[in-house]
Amino acid sequence: MASTYDQYREEMIGRANVADTPELVAYYQRLQSLGTGALWTVANKIEPWEPASTSVPYLWRYRDLREDVLRSLELVTPEQAGRRVVYLENPGRADVVAAVGWLYSGLQVMGPGECASSHRHSASALRFIMEGSGAFTNVDGHKMTLGANDFVLTPNGTWHEHGVSEDGTVCIWQDGLDIPLMNALDANFYEVHPELQQAISFPVNDSLGMWAGSALRPAGVTWTKPYSPLLKYEWGPTYEALLRYASVSEGSPYDGLLMEYVNPHTGGPVMPTIGASMQMLRAGQHTKAHRHTGSFVYQCAKGRGYSIINGQRFDWQERDIFVVPSWCWHEHVNLSEGEDACLFTFNDLPVMRSLGIYREEAFGENGGHQPILA
Amino acid sequence: MASTYDQYREEMIGRANVADTPELVAYYQRLQSLGTGALWTVANKIEPWEPASTSVPYLWRYRDLREDVLRSLELVTPEQAGRRVVYLENPGRADVVAAVGWLYSGLQVMGPGECASSHRHSASALRFIMEGSGAFTNVDGHKMTLGANDFVLTPNGTWHEHGVSEDGTVCIWQDGLDIPLMNALDANFYEVHPELQQAISFPVNDSLGMWAGSALRPAGVTWTKPYSPLLKYEWGPTYEALLRYASVSEGSPYDGLLMEYVNPHTGGPVMPTIGASMQMLRAGQHTKAHRHTGSFVYQCAKGRGYSIINGQRFDWQERDIFVVPSWCWHEHVNLSEGEDACLFTFNDLPVMRSLGIYREEAFGENGGHQPILA
Amino acid sequence: MASTYDQYREEMIGRANVADTPELVAYYQRLQSLGTGALWTVANKIEPWEPASTSVPYLWRYRDLREDVLRSLELVTPEQAGRRVVYLENPGRADVVAAVGWLYSGLQVMGPGECASSHRHSASALRFIMEGSGAFTNVDGHKMTLGANDFVLTPNGTWHEHGVSEDGTVCIWQDGLDIPLMNALDANFYEVHPELQQAISFPVNDSLGMWAGSALRPAGVTWTKPYSPLLKYEWGPTYEALLRYASVSEGSPYDGLLMEYVNPHTGGPVMPTIGASMQMLRAGQHTKAHRHTGSFVYQCAKGRGYSIINGQRFDWQERDIFVVPSWCWHEHVNLSEGEDACLFTFNDLPVMRSLGIYREEAFGENGGHQPILA
Amino acid sequence: MASTYDQYREEMIGRANVADTPELVAYYQRLQSLGTGALWTVANKIEPWEPASTSVPYLWRYRDLREDVLRSLELVTPEQAGRRVVYLENPGRADVVAAVGWLYSGLQVMGPGECASSHRHSASALRFIMEGSGAFTNVDGHKMTLGANDFVLTPNGTWHEHGVSEDGTVCIWQDGLDIPLMNALDANFYEVHPELQQAISFPVNDSLGMWAGSALRPAGVTWTKPYSPLLKYEWGPTYEALLRYASVSEGSPYDGLLMEYVNPHTGGPVMPTIGASMQMLRAGQHTKAHRHTGSFVYQCAKGRGYSIINGQRFDWQERDIFVVPSWCWHEHVNLSEGEDACLFTFNDLPVMRSLGIYREEAFGENGGHQPILA
Repeated sequence: MASTYDQYREEMIGRANVADTPELVAYYQRLQSLGTGALWTVANKIEPWEPASTSVPYLWRYRDLREDVLRSLELVTPEQAGRRVVYLENPGRADVVAAVGWLYSGLQVMGPGECASSHRHSASALRFIMEGSGAFTNVDGHKMTLGANDFVLTPNGTWHEHGVSEDGTVCIWQDGLDIPLMNALDANFYEVHPELQQAISFPVNDSLGMWAGSALRPAGVTWTKPYSPLLKYEWGPTYEALLRYASVSEGSPYDGLLMEYVNPHTGGPVMPTIGASMQMLRAGQHTKAHRHTGSFVYQCAKGRGYSIINGQRFDWQERDIFVVPSWCWHEHVNLSEGEDACLFTFNDLPVMRSLGIYREEAFGENGGHQPILA
Repeated sequence: MASTYDQYREEMIGRANVADTPELVAYYQRLQSLGTGALWTVANKIEPWEPASTSVPYLWRYRDLREDVLRSLELVTPEQAGRRVVYLENPGRADVVAAVGWLYSGLQVMGPGECASSHRHSASALRFIMEGSGAFTNVDGHKMTLGANDFVLTPNGTWHEHGVSEDGTVCIWQDGLDIPLMNALDANFYEVHPELQQAISFPVNDSLGMWAGSALRPAGVTWTKPYSPLLKYEWGPTYEALLRYASVSEGSPYDGLLMEYVNPHTGGPVMPTIGASMQMLRAGQHTKAHRHTGSFVYQCAKGRGYSIINGQRFDWQERDIFVVPSWCWHEHVNLSEGEDACLFTFNDLPVMRSLGIYREEAFGENGGHQPILA
Repeated sequence: MASTYDQYREEMIGRANVADTPELVAYYQRLQSLGTGALWTVANKIEPWEPASTSVPYLWRYRDLREDVLRSLELVTPEQAGRRVVYLENPGRADVVAAVGWLYSGLQVMGPGECASSHRHSASALRFIMEGSGAFTNVDGHKMTLGANDFVLTPNGTWHEHGVSEDGTVCIWQDGLDIPLMNALDANFYEVHPELQQAISFPVNDSLGMWAGSALRPAGVTWTKPYSPLLKYEWGPTYEALLRYASVSEGSPYDGLLMEYVNPHTGGPVMPTIGASMQMLRAGQHTKAHRHTGSFVYQCAKGRGYSIINGQRFDWQERDIFVVPSWCWHEHVNLSEGEDACLFTFNDLPVMRSLGIYREEAFGENGGHQPILA
Repeated sequence: MASTYDQYREEMIGRANVADTPELVAYYQRLQSLGTGALWTVANKIEPWEPASTSVPYLWRYRDLREDVLRSLELVTPEQAGRRVVYLENPGRADVVAAVGWLYSGLQVMGPGECASSHRHSASALRFIMEGSGAFTNVDGHKMTLGANDFVLTPNGTWHEHGVSEDGTVCIWQDGLDIPLMNALDANFYEVHPELQQAISFPVNDSLGMWAGSALRPAGVTWTKPYSPLLKYEWGPTYEALLRYASVSEGSPYDGLLMEYVNPHTGGPVMPTIGASMQMLRAGQHTKAHRHTGSFVYQCAKGRGYSIINGQRFDWQERDIFVVPSWCWHEHVNLSEGEDACLFTFNDLPVMRSLGIYREEAFGENGGHQPILA
């Protein structure tokens, strides 16, 4: 066991390059006994030239998962399970139960007449409705009704509960949370509502009546919370906005027509730690590749196509979910020649931006397109 | 002429109360010769107990003005006049050509095929369309088409020009500017476009495609100007938003259902010095009286009713314009039992708020309603 | 009296250029009877090419005023006068009792043992100490002791009172307020303290112990007011900071070594409507001329020199006060070859910046120096 | 191995409580094969009731480490090692080379005439000088000289290099960085300066001349970076500020007299991801216990005492370093009856605040003092 400390050496000025010697190894061992170590034995490891995420690009096909998600209806009740969810596990992030980076995602299913108990937590959360009718969410007394491709917030610290009305059908939606980040930051708190269910304190869908106008706000209404007062973003107006955007702009060569959901009170992200967006790829569009910091979970909301992520092709159709880890090259293709395709994402961009560590880079070679790895 | 300096005396501790004496008058005269004065001779005048605006409540009936506005079509050309506008002159503010406070307003008229030359100025400006078809405005290369009750911005420092298309009709709109404020602050600059007309550099109405979505923003589009990137606010979606607001909220007892037009990039006012709003009064609604700092110009966009301003009743119907000076009591009445009424306003609230001097007060007596003065 | 409406004509496309005719004059008269007017008769007047302030450059020599200021000690008591102040009246702004623009200034005098009654108002206020010992100010229970060249805030809405301790001497200080602006904006409120004197609720000079550290703030202390929590800026550390600044920077060619007093909680201006600064001119320095929007009141705090304002030379020495109106060219000269000179200013820059109307321009000819007008 | 999935069950409504059955285990295994899992098998683990940091409270005594730190002078050169540093390894965070949470810390040593090569990285960094004379740091061309207890920034993205002048002595300082956080967020970039050394482009210590004044800023100097323009915070003025603070305030019952180092441009934290503070404990002071989110690294800058962290006593004297993990109870004691004691900290509070997850709680029992665990 001569040499075990010099495995990260690099032959370059400005980088650590110290070969083990018996004297040094003895020194390292002594340092270890003092709760310390020599930086130069690990410096090149902990200061990589660029990010090398432990998350891997991955895609979950909805048709592979749907049956098992539905089966959980028979296997457990919401009372037993708390929430009846099949979570998505990134092969590189199983230890922290993340779909990518520090973002958790899962598919939740509820049947007509079911309603989960109310709770709150430090994690910020969202739902994106995949199928079924009659789903609702209650956030701090604001009840919202939900349909396919609607996007709803249950922000950090809000009491919330989900359910499906008696006259609804089985509903499936995607949950997105930053539970792993809250745990990593040693800041996760959890509470069950003392009465298990909260009252509905406001007219149904009231946050839309107040805050969903186009560039209008209710006068005299104060808002001091760090997240959006608008809690639901409906698919209909979102798709219309994308069509209008498409009619006046080329959009981005990397992202097509990408609109971020925003907090109408500030113009900023919907929640301090999670952002979300919907993007449209025109019929036949093939975007150029770029990469940036931040972890992204995508769901195909409309159409079919594929994405190339770090040289690997992932084909998707409606309801498929895939992830792009931080600093991975990615480009998207709409395989339809006649129809647009839409991708929903949630991500940790607000964290990147708040902390000043957002960075992006275009793929410069080959006309901006990655070669696909065999 | 014994005593001319002690006209503002008040018999109260903490207020100036100095009677003229020959010795004092001689002293005052000496001070005057030095470019100075004794504060106590003017203190009670310049430090009133509360604001006493020189502006007066006033209403201009559109049916009284319309014919004369149209007549200017025959009397002057846009080339001669610069802009063919009948301005509204508050009896208390004729010296600064203001409709109220430091806000200018006028009715502009253009015929089919006319287009004014392009200019820019420090004053922030807006238009509110009153009648006609085919009106357009071009702001820094962004052309917008305009219909009745549309609200459009021409912010501080932007090149802009107005016109009516060949296939349009005679159009009349209300202009709103803070020319008097810019003059008062010694900060007004004016420039004529070197080529008199600017190019149309973007797709028509592009700012709506980019920024008029409900709580959505185009990703990657930067905006660093202090005013809204959305330049036109259309009547249709605004009225729908008011109806939705009405379905979930009582609104304000003083203002009914009042929504402020906002800058979607920030959630703040549309321009740094001028704000704007549209408010709905339900059928039969009679609001309670309040008062606040800030000067307001109203135009009735829909319906009919009256407002009581400092005890004086002003009846209005569609297209009538009236003003509420700062710190004047005001309440509004919708005279229709079946239809809502809508009031557009522009105002200097952003100035009040930026400078930290917004203040408001409810009328406490008589159930919140002012007695009407004979 | 044929023609009285066309006095502002300009022969340039884009400007109003309509000659009076009998028909037009009749039209104008009719408009007047309706509370309106034709914009083109006044457009060139109210939209000048650049600001033309009604304020004039002016200088008040302290040696001319001091005796009269002191004489007021015998003529009136603080009880009678409210405050015993000789105010500075700009020849162009006598109607609004302003020293320049919308800024008021005056010289206040108090004798040992005197204390004015406590009041508050919408106007923001400051004092700059000129001479004497034992002066103090109490702001919302925070008492501060004051010496020459100390700068103290009494912000909008704070209860405040001034006095001189029994063991002090006669004290003179300069008051600066934006009373004229508050009146112009119809937002001025005034209140006398119900008990005439307020208690001292905190340790003397406590705001310095809390907030005067260099880039340090007391943890856990919240501050939500729109003005600085630091209420006094002492001359000693200010002068030292200027010397340190001079040792590492050339400063500005137009202003020498100019430091703005800031709100340590935000890094922004000390109050929302009034800013202040202290600038040092090196021995023999002659700055270049520039002009900008915003009104400035200067007091020479140290040394002697002159300023050229719109071509007119104004010589100053310690305690002299002069004003530079908005958009006037100005440059400064330190006449000492061995000593630095220091100029204190207060100004309305925060208003210019909040409203987005700050603009500046360098004097381009003659090496940056104005010719002095005969 | 019948049951391996139900180890986190909790018997409480609102928590997951599903016992393994053969059918469920088969289901779980099938889910695993699909890159998924059942949330209820891990929900109680990933959603704890409150944070349970893997970091442990820990103290490194300087007298235990100093000799080994100095010995590295003989063992490696800066050229070989990149930086000659002994890092502090929290027993619970060895995998990420962190002293606590996501914060790295180490003791760096350099001899006279040594200078490390210049580099930059996404991690934000700081130094706190422990002993020696002649140390300097160059940040983007701004060279600073450093003495004991001085605190210096090398922010995210700045080129920086450290050294000791020829006429100096051996110097030791503490490094603080958020390398682990940048790695965790997949956002760490590293670059070596192309010329290995950068030029000194500004007068030495110029950032102090510009920005270290008390509530003063150089006019006309723009600053758009997200970190402080003041790069060095000297011990002398910091200690004086603490003494002045102590003279006017009780300070906090939990922290004594704690001042945060701030960015003078904004009043906010010195860097977006790392904050720092200096706190004074009065002679004999024993603070009350509290806990909060955020990870803290302390160094005793003056005096001696002890801290109780989650019931464990850690005695410290000058130069000792200890850590308080997130949500750990802590209270501090100054053991001297005649002298104050000072503790420097750096921490991730700016992250907690930017992301909206700061929370704190007082220890309610036993007069606010923790029982010390055996």
